[in-house]
Amino acid sequence: MSVLPHSVENVINEFSKLPGVGPKSSARMVYHFLRSRNNDATKLGNALIEMDEKVKFCSLCFNVTDKDVCDICSNPLRDKNMICVVEEPLDVVAFENSAVFNGVYFVLGGVISPAEGITASELRFNELEKRIKDEIKDSNQIIELIVAVNPSLEGEATASYIQDLFKKYVKEEKMHISRLAMGLPTGADLEYADRLTLKKALEGRRDI
Amino acid sequence: MSVLPHSVENVINEFSKLPGVGPKSSARMVYHFLRSRNNDATKLGNALIEMDEKVKFCSLCFNVTDKDVCDICSNPLRDKNMICVVEEPLDVVAFENSAVFNGVYFVLGGVISPAEGITASELRFNELEKRIKDEIKDSNQIIELIVAVNPSLEGEATASYIQDLFKKYVKEEKMHISRLAMGLPTGADLEYADRLTLKKALEGRRDI
Repeated sequence: MSVLPHSVENVINEFSKLPGVGPKSSARMVYHFLRSRNNDATKLGNALIEMDEKVKFCSLCFNVTDKDVCDICSNPLRDKNMICVVEEPLDVVAFENSAVFNGVYFVLGGVISPAEGITASELRFNELEKRIKDEIKDSNQIIELIVAVNPSLEGEATASYIQDLFKKYVKEEKMHISRLAMGLPTGADLEYADRLTLKKALEGRRDI
Repeated sequence: MSVLPHSVENVINEFSKLPGVGPKSSARMVYHFLRSRNNDATKLGNALIEMDEKVKFCSLCFNVTDKDVCDICSNPLRDKNMICVVEEPLDVVAFENSAVFNGVYFVLGGVISPAEGITASELRFNELEKRIKDEIKDSNQIIELIVAVNPSLEGEATASYIQDLFKKYVKEEKMHISRLAMGLPTGADLEYADRLTLKKALEGRRDI
């Protein structure tokens, strides 16, 4: 016989699935709800369900959105010839909050990481190629692909992979590929970079 | 214009209310859901709503339960003459998992903490007195109240308060009040024990 009601155990189990949340902190969170009795649990519950219902990925850039095409991709003032390839939606938030970039994004969904068993097939390289082809077709200008993955080993590998994958477009002079300048210290997380660091990294980007 | 869909911001806000969760880790959790796409958010959402609907406090001990009277209080094999006073439901779980106690519990809902603005009126002292009176009425034996609050400054203050509040029952020899022993925890290294722990361990030493 469990000491706790089934419904409480259930929430503790679900919380424990979250990154950085162990059984102890999960239990702490649950007791926060039980103590507060402000229907906070129901509020979070409804917010989570609403998120699952409403949030989808932008069909162009795969950022999270509640529309078919996100606000950034559908904004006519954004420069469609500059595509910034990032790992995660949070990286888009970091760029947007720093207001240093007026192009569009492409969310890869992670980086190639043999250690974590993430291969290229699990990332959105096919979708990225489709996006590039579409932009090349629509534009008279040379497309710039800014590879803005984190400056980690996996990021380096992913950047190389991208360079290799799209070299034909570069040869045909339809696209060039750049990387963020290594103003970012190795091992840093792009998500936590300050505005100036992001700005410098953008300004110092170089063709690869 | 926010970069994130409203429904995502909403969940991040709700998560940020949890103890030990800042905006960054809150965002991490949300992106875990957005990445996984296993309806994990809906699962947690439903679990939270179900918990809010089903879970209440036991009318006798104020532990969390899905019944009017919890399984421990309604168990005829538990010794009703021993009432273990704890701060939180998690403390009940700790005792039950260790299977070292066969009495019943009373969940106070916290400890007196002037620093956090928690006064005696916010804790369940009236309910505890009612419980004690009922047990005294029903039992021929002397009730034992085991004060099992955490050995913190606030815990000490709360224990003193309890001792003072119920001294009439002790004088009338209807109840006695005890505290958990203090000393070195199992597996502790004496070398690293703090001064107070060593002092308590010395004071509480027993012949062998």
